[in-house]
Amino acid sequence: MAVNSPLPVAADLKPVNGIEIGFAEAGIKKPNRKDVLVMKLGEGATVAGVFTKNRFCAAPVQVSEANLAAAAAGGKPIRALVINTGNANAGTGASGLADANATCAALAQLLGCDAQQILPFSTGVILEPLPLAKLVAGLPAAVGNLKLDNWFNAAEAIMTTDTQPKAASRTVAVCGHAVTMTGISKGAGMIRPNMATMLGYLAIDAKVAQPVLDELVRHAADHSFNCITIDGDTSTNDSFMLIATGTGSLAIANTDSTEYGELKIAVTELARNLAQQIIRDGEGATKFITVTVDDGSTVDECRKVAYSIAHSPLVKTAFFASDPNLGRILCAIGYAGVDDLDVSKLDMYLDDVWVCKNGGRNPDYQEADGQRVMQKSEITVRVKLARGSASATVWTCDLSHDYVTINADYRS
Amino acid sequence: MAVNSPLPVAADLKPVNGIEIGFAEAGIKKPNRKDVLVMKLGEGATVAGVFTKNRFCAAPVQVSEANLAAAAAGGKPIRALVINTGNANAGTGASGLADANATCAALAQLLGCDAQQILPFSTGVILEPLPLAKLVAGLPAAVGNLKLDNWFNAAEAIMTTDTQPKAASRTVAVCGHAVTMTGISKGAGMIRPNMATMLGYLAIDAKVAQPVLDELVRHAADHSFNCITIDGDTSTNDSFMLIATGTGSLAIANTDSTEYGELKIAVTELARNLAQQIIRDGEGATKFITVTVDDGSTVDECRKVAYSIAHSPLVKTAFFASDPNLGRILCAIGYAGVDDLDVSKLDMYLDDVWVCKNGGRNPDYQEADGQRVMQKSEITVRVKLARGSASATVWTCDLSHDYVTINADYRS
Repeated sequence: MAVNSPLPVAADLKPVNGIEIGFAEAGIKKPNRKDVLVMKLGEGATVAGVFTKNRFCAAPVQVSEANLAAAAAGGKPIRALVINTGNANAGTGASGLADANATCAALAQLLGCDAQQILPFSTGVILEPLPLAKLVAGLPAAVGNLKLDNWFNAAEAIMTTDTQPKAASRTVAVCGHAVTMTGISKGAGMIRPNMATMLGYLAIDAKVAQPVLDELVRHAADHSFNCITIDGDTSTNDSFMLIATGTGSLAIANTDSTEYGELKIAVTELARNLAQQIIRDGEGATKFITVTVDDGSTVDECRKVAYSIAHSPLVKTAFFASDPNLGRILCAIGYAGVDDLDVSKLDMYLDDVWVCKNGGRNPDYQEADGQRVMQKSEITVRVKLARGSASATVWTCDLSHDYVTINADYRS
Repeated sequence: MAVNSPLPVAADLKPVNGIEIGFAEAGIKKPNRKDVLVMKLGEGATVAGVFTKNRFCAAPVQVSEANLAAAAAGGKPIRALVINTGNANAGTGASGLADANATCAALAQLLGCDAQQILPFSTGVILEPLPLAKLVAGLPAAVGNLKLDNWFNAAEAIMTTDTQPKAASRTVAVCGHAVTMTGISKGAGMIRPNMATMLGYLAIDAKVAQPVLDELVRHAADHSFNCITIDGDTSTNDSFMLIATGTGSLAIANTDSTEYGELKIAVTELARNLAQQIIRDGEGATKFITVTVDDGSTVDECRKVAYSIAHSPLVKTAFFASDPNLGRILCAIGYAGVDDLDVSKLDMYLDDVWVCKNGGRNPDYQEADGQRVMQKSEITVRVKLARGSASATVWTCDLSHDYVTINADYRS
């Protein structure tokens, strides 16, 4: 199903020392399905995260933010993360907050720590009460099968409308230190992250000081999960968590070091890979589209134009149809909100084909060339604004019949 | 096809003295189809309009804006409008501008006036050259069948993916003066007007001074065409034109009069009717949705929230499915961009059903009640922000398989 995204191989997902993973089938929404995940952290681990900016942010997001802030401010360290699918615990008011805290308390009792040392996460239907009893009843099983080598199961346990698990793993050398990093993510709808996406988890075995990790998670999110969109719907539950277990030989205390620079590149690359896996498996996706906007006066205006293209239902259906109806892209550029845009200087390319020149149809453009590119499963739209030197890139997918089918049937 | 929108009856569309209408089958994109419309204005008519804010605004829009401004500034009056379907003449650069001006010159020669006294309009595919020779060859036929009683044909002549013509007509009494007004509009995709929509034309037989008409067209557009969205795509060709032929007994010289107040209400009502006809016939629409946001601190923030709901593909597919998956509405409210929104005070209703109370599920809400409302073909979503006394309403439709089908096949 997913666009050029091979299924991850369990054996390729390297354990990260200092983080054990367990799962359960708690029957939260449907039976016989992994729907609870526990990630237990060892001594010395640091955790940083970014969360959705949606004002209806879910109860577990609120609790995770608070608990993470308390730990980062010198409180007891985070000991575990707990994630359920099948219910988002969002739009659930005060009782939803109580349920999220009760989940933490139940897991804390099993692990022998405080409830505030647990970070809870949920994904699924909004506006329905969390089936707390089922979730709590599933925790002992998840704790019972905790092990280092469980990343593939973890990727499966957080799936909702995803057609396949999303995971990636690397061992990189940073200034002579081998660093292992493994991450998982999920989509596949309500995807237009603003700060992070529901759900991404990335663990590295380096020792990274809390302020450095905070900077690193924001940088990685801004260059990965914050550059993707499927349907423009910023979820209530988006969360991207970066965990440094501190078990390896690399230790980073500040952001000025060469080590940090190299680690940042490696972590960002892995985060981008996880983010792109979400797009490749976007609901109903048949094409993977890269939208790059160059020569803008600010990154912000480049992002505006890129998202305007990436969100246009008319552009997305044209990609689905493999129809080079490329005027729709110009239309989306025109209403992107760059009020002083001089379109008479604008150029647009589809892969290597120069379609729009100085705001009009390139006289050398042939429909057959546009048609050739549109047949491909991976396509790059490049827009040149002729206003400066800023750039931005956004990754998205097409809008197909299957998107409508999936979202018209979601709860049934 | 269209949602609760009966076909206009030709005999109900009252002629407006001072405006004659002719049409032709010019074969611009397909044969045997009305695709050119000419509206000829008599002496003493005034014209005002609002146009798309899309930066890629089409060549005819640029020419119409310039010619209208020249007439309003005391130049020779506007004598005719010419409209073609089958090609938008947008994204066509300098040659597109030359084609729009050449169209005006050709019609001016037939009518015995200056090219600057003509307003050109186009709708159809973007980024393709206007078939100027075909258009010009069709003009004599259109001029040859000019007559007062031709509004139904006019409504048919401007259709593109519309499944039925859109028109409405009223005779209203304004301070003792009978005023006749008739209008036409078209949709049915690339609809999220910003200042006006492609294409709306409304004629009244009152005599209205130019500054008054300018005010009136903006007011009417802001409360009608500027409150609708189908797919969030602001077209390159949106135009809403208001024509006062001056043939009736009502004459309005300034905006302070009682007459103006009454006329404004009547014109705005008719414009809203035309705008709503576009939504009822939105591409693939099966439901007509009214989104009202009350108790905001500003109209602008109410509109932001309303459009966020109206544009969410997840909300729109839930309506298509008649599935009360109403958490998706909360999600869209949450990312609407009202950064200091306190969701713990927010209420939301679906018709008469109180779904969300103080930011969570109303304890009295029953799924069966939501299900009952979702089955209807006309549904109102009402959000109460608890921040002030401002309100805004937006009209939209659902997102169905047919929307994808129509837009994946548009050019074939």
